[in-house]
Amino acid sequence: MKQSTYEAQVKKALEFYEKAGIIISPEEKTRIEVADFGLDDVENIGLQILTYINTERVCAKEMVLTPHQTCPEHMHISSYGMPGKEETFRCRYGKVYLYVSGEGKREDAQAKMPNTDLTVFKEVVLLPGEQYTIMPETLHWFTAGEDGAVVSEFSTRSTDETDVFTDKRIVRETKID
Amino acid sequence: MKQSTYEAQVKKALEFYEKAGIIISPEEKTRIEVADFGLDDVENIGLQILTYINTERVCAKEMVLTPHQTCPEHMHISSYGMPGKEETFRCRYGKVYLYVSGEGKREDAQAKMPNTDLTVFKEVVLLPGEQYTIMPETLHWFTAGEDGAVVSEFSTRSTDETDVFTDKRIVRETKID
Repeated sequence: MKQSTYEAQVKKALEFYEKAGIIISPEEKTRIEVADFGLDDVENIGLQILTYINTERVCAKEMVLTPHQTCPEHMHISSYGMPGKEETFRCRYGKVYLYVSGEGKREDAQAKMPNTDLTVFKEVVLLPGEQYTIMPETLHWFTAGEDGAVVSEFSTRSTDETDVFTDKRIVRETKID
Repeated sequence: MKQSTYEAQVKKALEFYEKAGIIISPEEKTRIEVADFGLDDVENIGLQILTYINTERVCAKEMVLTPHQTCPEHMHISSYGMPGKEETFRCRYGKVYLYVSGEGKREDAQAKMPNTDLTVFKEVVLLPGEQYTIMPETLHWFTAGEDGAVVSEFSTRSTDETDVFTDKRIVRETKID
């Protein structure tokens, strides 16, 4: 990702936090993560993340999806002798289309389909004040509606490097040129 | 606590969530907890709590303190073979005066002193967008400034019944007549 792309995504994220009424500190504004999953198409496949806290036991993040931006399909597996990450997504602004393992077909999905490999289509639509909990080893992906979304995540420790993605082109580490 | 007192506190909590721009669902509005710690003085010693999620591993809550309302001094000890609760408090609205174990004297504390036993006075003042993490077995108490406060809590599993309070009059379970 180019430095200019990174900066543009951070600017959008800050605008979304403001729209959602979420106050973040000056220090936090300098460390917003922009994940492009190595696909160099961050406006479509990507995610903006502010990690509030990530200790051995607890993690909390405030995520932003721009309109129709997608976090690609993945799951959190056991690693370092610990069970995989368990996470609750709570919508704060906009609309989130979350898809998890279970009954559901691609053709019935309401979301705009992103250009990445997908295998699970059990649909959960989250509006502000609504939430859903994803247990470890559960495939999931999510995308925003036309107004984008702000999503709080409450979870166990986040170890992104152990996530398993369905789209084998994906590299979780983001490189900024 | 009288039913009318409970209802009055819930009403105030809902007003604070609205002021903080925090959207909660109709179902959540029906299950806001009002803790009076058995002291029957909830306007001074008390706390309003909405628990978003509390699983074996993760807990997230949205707490409200009315002006100068205090959550009394306590700590989270090991129980059921698990280490004590670890929690991060993030201020969303108003001002929180948090006191933890460490250097600090009662006479230097900026907060209005509540009528309950206190032994720790290391002061942490949290404004919106600021947060602090409390590790297990750390004595702490907190109180709001004159405008009250809304505080998000990100933590490990919450097991209130194992909390150890300094004020021995306290009973954590709230009874509503």
